[in-house]
Amino acid sequence: MDALQIIGRKRDGQEHSREEIDFLLAGYTAGRIPDYQVAAWLMAVVTRGMTRAETLALTRSMVASGEILDLSAIDGIKVDKHSTGGVGDKVTLIAGPLAAACGVPVPKLSGRALAHTGGTLDKLESIPGFSAELDPARFITQVREIGLAVAAQSARMVPADGALYALRDVTATVPSIPLIASSVMAKKIAAGADAMVLDVKAGRGAFMPDVDSAVALAREMVDIGEGAGRRTVALITAMDTPLGRAVGNALEVTEALAVLAGGGDAALREVSLLVATEMCRLGGVSRDPGDALADGSGRERFERMIAAQGGRLAAGLPQARVTLPVLARRSGWVAAVDALEVGRAALEAGAGRQRKEDAIDPAAGIVIERTVGDEVRTGDTIAVVHAASSAAAQAAANRLGGAWRVSPEPVTPPPHILRRVP
Amino acid sequence: MDALQIIGRKRDGQEHSREEIDFLLAGYTAGRIPDYQVAAWLMAVVTRGMTRAETLALTRSMVASGEILDLSAIDGIKVDKHSTGGVGDKVTLIAGPLAAACGVPVPKLSGRALAHTGGTLDKLESIPGFSAELDPARFITQVREIGLAVAAQSARMVPADGALYALRDVTATVPSIPLIASSVMAKKIAAGADAMVLDVKAGRGAFMPDVDSAVALAREMVDIGEGAGRRTVALITAMDTPLGRAVGNALEVTEALAVLAGGGDAALREVSLLVATEMCRLGGVSRDPGDALADGSGRERFERMIAAQGGRLAAGLPQARVTLPVLARRSGWVAAVDALEVGRAALEAGAGRQRKEDAIDPAAGIVIERTVGDEVRTGDTIAVVHAASSAAAQAAANRLGGAWRVSPEPVTPPPHILRRVP
Repeated sequence: MDALQIIGRKRDGQEHSREEIDFLLAGYTAGRIPDYQVAAWLMAVVTRGMTRAETLALTRSMVASGEILDLSAIDGIKVDKHSTGGVGDKVTLIAGPLAAACGVPVPKLSGRALAHTGGTLDKLESIPGFSAELDPARFITQVREIGLAVAAQSARMVPADGALYALRDVTATVPSIPLIASSVMAKKIAAGADAMVLDVKAGRGAFMPDVDSAVALAREMVDIGEGAGRRTVALITAMDTPLGRAVGNALEVTEALAVLAGGGDAALREVSLLVATEMCRLGGVSRDPGDALADGSGRERFERMIAAQGGRLAAGLPQARVTLPVLARRSGWVAAVDALEVGRAALEAGAGRQRKEDAIDPAAGIVIERTVGDEVRTGDTIAVVHAASSAAAQAAANRLGGAWRVSPEPVTPPPHILRRVP
Repeated sequence: MDALQIIGRKRDGQEHSREEIDFLLAGYTAGRIPDYQVAAWLMAVVTRGMTRAETLALTRSMVASGEILDLSAIDGIKVDKHSTGGVGDKVTLIAGPLAAACGVPVPKLSGRALAHTGGTLDKLESIPGFSAELDPARFITQVREIGLAVAAQSARMVPADGALYALRDVTATVPSIPLIASSVMAKKIAAGADAMVLDVKAGRGAFMPDVDSAVALAREMVDIGEGAGRRTVALITAMDTPLGRAVGNALEVTEALAVLAGGGDAALREVSLLVATEMCRLGGVSRDPGDALADGSGRERFERMIAAQGGRLAAGLPQARVTLPVLARRSGWVAAVDALEVGRAALEAGAGRQRKEDAIDPAAGIVIERTVGDEVRTGDTIAVVHAASSAAAQAAANRLGGAWRVSPEPVTPPPHILRRVP
């Protein structure tokens, strides 16, 4: 077997054997196969595609490249949750505690923010003292005791994915459903849970722009999960508009706490409850997450998790020095709030990373005051920017101006839950 | 403009502007754009294709990457000749002198052998004393005085092609008609002739396996040549069987001399005369190359060229230490002599390079005694291997065994000239 032949086979649209994929990935990880050969192969994969069998083989090979977390010391069916990333997506912070409160062990490993979508770790780390760096023993103990832990995934897990993703990022080979699906699923499989609920976002603010491509990605991921022996369910949820009202790390924690206290945004509550319900179903638990919301046990579970990981909610969340309202320029009904533009505005405000090495301002972000379907009058506050400086706030506000579309007619908000796979 | 966007456009099947191609090629040649990005782009080109406008832009950009030979000091319409490479292809050694004898100035820059196909320079350098390293002034003077010079193309011409070809070779991105056509034509355009005859080989021993793909390549090359203001004609000729009887450097020079003396193989004579006729037509010369063959002026021209470049034919060509006949295993009529297998056998005998750094044995090769259409009886010599050692000769003979197909019925040899473009 040699790399050139393998690349040539994919170039010609042929199907790889499992051995070929293992050879390529192991050779790349070990430094025997150079970047330029893997770059050519990746582009051949993007343009020619991969079969389900190839995608599963690639995922398995990536899982085998590093450590796998052994969660057998935790009783019950462990259920993980993953989102493909959206603007204002704090569902993990709500659904995780609700499922845990219902009796599902939720061992969640997570990543940090990429581009305009926030990362769960960045949100939690806005809480003073909170640490996402748990070693495996402590992680497992916490899931056993509290039913829930959210920690950073170790770089020793799935190192091949790290190398491959970095190369995809600089060779225009990111947009490929098999490559995206195997990258996500390898990390989830290595994280060791028995089952997982995938929240696949579709729309302007998501990686997948439309429902069809989101369904295609969801099918691929569910097939990989099931192929690797993990019960997997995917929900396709809307991401044309930010989810909930807050975008930005501390602001999103505050919003999650509000939902767990029984208030907050209705769409965010609806999506979070559905995700939690799917987690309970996979976990073989009959309690209704709606009860865990109503009786406050979900919120209590969230607070215990934060405390167990060093977080001090009582110390208060960081507050932005500057808040700048954005005013409606016309009257009518809000027809659209462009999630991508709001995500970019949050970046301008300091809530995310434009480059890997950038620091995040935990207090920065956007709070949406008028969302799709709301009536609005000229001069009303439609959003408030939170930032560390007026310059950053103004830059974010300038971007936000174009994110709202106002209609002269009343608008019915579109559904938030679009599809379920399978 | 940035490289990632350009790669992404080709990945998505879009057409590049001339500026994008210039940006990519200049950036690569200057070392600003890394191998892995160009590798991904090359694979996108292989799988998505390029339009004629893109291919012409790529060719022009490659020509602009280095020196261009100025042949204006030579009177008349200068006509170059190029073959895409075949087994036993010594047409340049015959057609060049015939066209020059008819009055066409033939300034020929050439390359060395690749894989199983021989290079014109390697053949000529088997003549004791012959040098293909002519500086531009001497090259031009020789074409003015003798009408013919064959020299090595300077590395200062089309350096971008050298870099790109080396990368294609290790990334499985060689087989692409636009990339092959632009690589050949950039070198031909930089070589400065006014017109060119392309001999595009089709068949088992050629780069293009069938007539259709050879015609596609020929059309692309003719369009590039005409687009760059060079009169260009392509002949598609057969390469299922080696051309002529000799394969190997000194053996092919001997065969070319025999044809120029009025003898030799009929197919080789036919193809060489047709190429020379096209060269004369493009050169605006009315003399018939058949006359230059009949009156010996073609051979005289060849000998003058060799002498002008230091070659001493009178010293004799190198002779192999070992000759090993290969015998027919059955009686009948030869139905096929597999050019690819004969080419590989010649490599085993020492006639070519398996790797770039290999030395060539100028005396090594194969002489075919029974070719397609010939009657043969068990035990007849069908070929003779020439090599430096019995081990090399035996290795070549072993391979040759499978190259002949013998039919119980008489066989009519197929045509050698398949098509002309335009």
